[in-house]
Amino acid sequence: MAQQSYEESALYRLRHSAAHLMAQAVTELYPGSKLAIGPPIENGFYYDIEFDEPLKEEELSKIEHRMRELANLDQPIVRKVAKDVEEARRIVLEECTLGQGEATALYKLQLLDAIPPGEEVSFYEQRAMDKQGKEHLFIDLCRGPHIESTKPIKHFKLMHLAGAYWRGDVKNKQLTRIYGTAFETKEELALYLHNLEEAKKRDHRILGRELGLFMFSPRVGPGLALWLPKGAILRDVLMDFLKEEQVRRGYEGVVTPNIASHRLYEKSGHILTYREKMFPFMEDEEKETFILKPMNCPFHIEIYSSTLRSYRELPVRLAEFGTVYRYEQSGELAGMLRVRGFTQDDAHLFVRPDQLLDEFKGVVDLMMVVLKKLGLSEYRVRVGTKDPESDKYVGHQDNWKQAEAAIMQACNELGLDYEVSPGDAAFYGPKLDLIIKDALGREWQMGTVQVDYNLPERFDLEYIGEDSKPHRPIMIHRAPFGSLERMIGLITEQYAGAFPLWLSPVQVAILPIADRHVGYAAHIASQLLGYDSRQEVEGEQVPFKSDQVDSPQLRVNIDDSRQTLGKKIRESQRQKVPYMLIIGDNDAEAGTVGVRSREDGDLGAMTLAEFVAKVKAEL
Amino acid sequence: MAQQSYEESALYRLRHSAAHLMAQAVTELYPGSKLAIGPPIENGFYYDIEFDEPLKEEELSKIEHRMRELANLDQPIVRKVAKDVEEARRIVLEECTLGQGEATALYKLQLLDAIPPGEEVSFYEQRAMDKQGKEHLFIDLCRGPHIESTKPIKHFKLMHLAGAYWRGDVKNKQLTRIYGTAFETKEELALYLHNLEEAKKRDHRILGRELGLFMFSPRVGPGLALWLPKGAILRDVLMDFLKEEQVRRGYEGVVTPNIASHRLYEKSGHILTYREKMFPFMEDEEKETFILKPMNCPFHIEIYSSTLRSYRELPVRLAEFGTVYRYEQSGELAGMLRVRGFTQDDAHLFVRPDQLLDEFKGVVDLMMVVLKKLGLSEYRVRVGTKDPESDKYVGHQDNWKQAEAAIMQACNELGLDYEVSPGDAAFYGPKLDLIIKDALGREWQMGTVQVDYNLPERFDLEYIGEDSKPHRPIMIHRAPFGSLERMIGLITEQYAGAFPLWLSPVQVAILPIADRHVGYAAHIASQLLGYDSRQEVEGEQVPFKSDQVDSPQLRVNIDDSRQTLGKKIRESQRQKVPYMLIIGDNDAEAGTVGVRSREDGDLGAMTLAEFVAKVKAEL
Repeated sequence: MAQQSYEESALYRLRHSAAHLMAQAVTELYPGSKLAIGPPIENGFYYDIEFDEPLKEEELSKIEHRMRELANLDQPIVRKVAKDVEEARRIVLEECTLGQGEATALYKLQLLDAIPPGEEVSFYEQRAMDKQGKEHLFIDLCRGPHIESTKPIKHFKLMHLAGAYWRGDVKNKQLTRIYGTAFETKEELALYLHNLEEAKKRDHRILGRELGLFMFSPRVGPGLALWLPKGAILRDVLMDFLKEEQVRRGYEGVVTPNIASHRLYEKSGHILTYREKMFPFMEDEEKETFILKPMNCPFHIEIYSSTLRSYRELPVRLAEFGTVYRYEQSGELAGMLRVRGFTQDDAHLFVRPDQLLDEFKGVVDLMMVVLKKLGLSEYRVRVGTKDPESDKYVGHQDNWKQAEAAIMQACNELGLDYEVSPGDAAFYGPKLDLIIKDALGREWQMGTVQVDYNLPERFDLEYIGEDSKPHRPIMIHRAPFGSLERMIGLITEQYAGAFPLWLSPVQVAILPIADRHVGYAAHIASQLLGYDSRQEVEGEQVPFKSDQVDSPQLRVNIDDSRQTLGKKIRESQRQKVPYMLIIGDNDAEAGTVGVRSREDGDLGAMTLAEFVAKVKAEL
Repeated sequence: MAQQSYEESALYRLRHSAAHLMAQAVTELYPGSKLAIGPPIENGFYYDIEFDEPLKEEELSKIEHRMRELANLDQPIVRKVAKDVEEARRIVLEECTLGQGEATALYKLQLLDAIPPGEEVSFYEQRAMDKQGKEHLFIDLCRGPHIESTKPIKHFKLMHLAGAYWRGDVKNKQLTRIYGTAFETKEELALYLHNLEEAKKRDHRILGRELGLFMFSPRVGPGLALWLPKGAILRDVLMDFLKEEQVRRGYEGVVTPNIASHRLYEKSGHILTYREKMFPFMEDEEKETFILKPMNCPFHIEIYSSTLRSYRELPVRLAEFGTVYRYEQSGELAGMLRVRGFTQDDAHLFVRPDQLLDEFKGVVDLMMVVLKKLGLSEYRVRVGTKDPESDKYVGHQDNWKQAEAAIMQACNELGLDYEVSPGDAAFYGPKLDLIIKDALGREWQMGTVQVDYNLPERFDLEYIGEDSKPHRPIMIHRAPFGSLERMIGLITEQYAGAFPLWLSPVQVAILPIADRHVGYAAHIASQLLGYDSRQEVEGEQVPFKSDQVDSPQLRVNIDDSRQTLGKKIRESQRQKVPYMLIIGDNDAEAGTVGVRSREDGDLGAMTLAEFVAKVKAEL
């Protein structure tokens, strides 16, 4: 909602004026440079400019410096409206190019030509005399609005350069785009720059590699992730958590193939409606045509309809961690956020109309449990309803009303705020989307719940009602994570790789100070693991004094490399392991471990039982 | 080994003579019928015959009856050698067709024509007079050998009819094939017939459907299984078991896509050597070509080679339950035993040459642990080595010697009998196969371990040795189950669907006798499940008397249908649930459950704690 009012905000005008201020500084510093366009954008502004000589990143500070000088002149920013096109052309050619030569009006003239006849043509002018008595003047063809003077443009920064084609057309000349940002307060700018730095540190593509979570390979292909051992643990832990929740809620797991005969997707209608996102078909003159699955739903429908269902059996809740493939354009691929192959935490609920409210509520409740477990406490809920103007929707009007009412009632009963977004429904039914705000305030569209009247109709799904007659069930599609890929991408950034204890691929790193401590380290490890891993490490086997603990079955790693303790600690920190147990001479004798926490640093020596109690309380 | 000597066995000769006996009976009962060929086969014999009128299954008992009469005549079976081709033709035309007319020699003459000139042509003749003084005579063109008289042919049975083309060519006439079997003793025949009945009862395709394990769907396509909820549990339990074993043994899990760019399989060489088993490629003029993965190995190699490996890191053991697709001909598909999509319990070990023995031993040891857990105690081990005559193998002679020696030494050190099968190695290295004998004595080729020198070479794999120089690792491919599909197919037949407790999809069925017992049933269920499932069942919630137990976290189902107790028990028996808990009036008061075991029947009333203790001891 905040985004919609951004264009009307004071901040938007400030940034627009900052773009003009930058253009003024550039025309003074680089005479002859040709200005194209300079709008405010989501997080700041830019200006596209043609320079005689390529601009370098280092020169941005010089431009910033001149911007500050010009801002301090407190130039009033004045709107001027041209009487007619003739006057507008004159202003562009004479005033906008003042001291620069007419050629610099190149792009402005083209912009002017594109303004429909009869439309008002406005300019914004800023001018002032400096202490040396020199006059500064800048006038730009511009719809506005702007702030009233350059004085408030104090908290800005030029960010970086990029190439941009005039009018976005690669056949046109490439211009230099200077990106900048501006804020109303010093604190806001500082926070923004801090968050940018943070975002870089949290970039899941970089962390994914550093922490050994996942990789991509050109030979496998773009958008197809390979999960490395620690990433595979993240997947397993998330799946185990959700599986357990689902079993408790009466879901049944199923497993279906990654391909199907074309007949399945003909029946479902996806070949008609979804073909552009499908991988090329597996076709061969002599063989049946197969399709790589983009969606799990038709498979779950085959399972539902494989047997006659009674009203007493419903709801049937079929869940699958189903890996699907969608042919995203290579330009749209972005780390784990947009991939070509991903595993949905998918489920389809086949429900009677009288069960719709309760089942929808159950699904949304599960989504809330998932978000809480993942530490994602900020989110908004968007209910996508029918566009009353459009006739693209399938299904009876009464069903839609009932479903939309059920969704909103479910939210109300669960005490959830939601916004209604008319026209945001799928063509086959209304839906609910979860938009999550992460630690940096960025929004991510994640889980979804959709009501579907279309597929039950297409596949002629039935159950035998209490009246012994066939009835049509309703389907609910849902995925609380959305996909494992996207959710792991999000929480990697959310936690900057420092996953909570329950989720950490390695929960405890055991660091023997010297080779002679490896034996005791292995002994401690086996107590934490719940089995003897001593086959895996070198070192003497002797009976050690330590508590016999009821094993917490932790994921443990022994660093038996021949590095110094300092290096071992730094490596574990780099890997963001929640706990390090440092094992030295005294420990084996005293039956203790030296505990170091990722968050709280050195916690001193503890008995193993004390450490286990601490960890168990945290899990 | 047993199969090799079958052709030389007395049983083989007995069955061959039984085929002749059947032909004799047929020619007497159906004059004018034309005999083609009648060999002994693995479990019996057959004879292909052209009848004037189609033979019906019901007529087999008539033929059997005549066979018995003819056998009892104790006809001596005598070998006769024709002097030359002329005499052979005369015998075929005059003696073999005795009383039948020359036209019945049709196929025998063609067989005679196919015998190379100079080769000995033999006949077998059996003749005797019956009590009525009628002479019975049968002579057949045959290489032999046979038994000496028809008398010992006592324990036989004609099994069924099938169509068979003369010389196996569909362009030829279709003949009637009569299948029969014969044994030396009554007991052996009875056991064989019993086992056949058992095999039918154990047919995993039928049980898979009845027990709700898996299904196939024409719209999804042949050979592509959909796992139903109970089958999905079997998969999960098997995977969890193996995962835990693997983690203890230092394996690391990975997850890789089901498709890859064609470049990956060009590099691996599979496009050249394995194309016929691949699904059609995903090709599109404007897009990169993708291939549905037939094998996981190249993906694991990409992971291995994504980082520089030190000798200290090796062995690297990458494991994945990887779903692969292979285009088997539709005629070759057979339930779960041969499918087009299956999940391998795959792993690839990247080892130094000095680690080969230990790692191979570790893999074989794991396979033994798996077999023991699955109750598959009968198996044989086959070591496939190089054919010394062939030059199809890649890799240095010394490597092969070392690898073959390592495999055999591993078997020796583990106390495993094995047979060496020269020429059975893969072209890239020697291997070990596990052939499992099931409860009915049938053999199944399951898990495999293969040493590979080829792929490390093709992908130029390296590790940095202690000498700081690059070295080439060796790869071990292994899959203890083989695939989840095949293994679940096997154990379904092995256990006839009555899976051991740890593996059963539903471990305990709770059967409330009447609706008023559902509340207590739910209370018991929540104790066994480890959480409260009462949301899922109807019935009054009251505090119940029963032991608070440390939950065994069993898979529990409450049968709250409105059936009689008898029906509920039969349904649980049909579903082969290991334990039923029958809940009646006294139980809620006394805090007991009525226990019924799948194997041992009614065990009477127990407290919940007693039942849990019993079950825990069994798990």
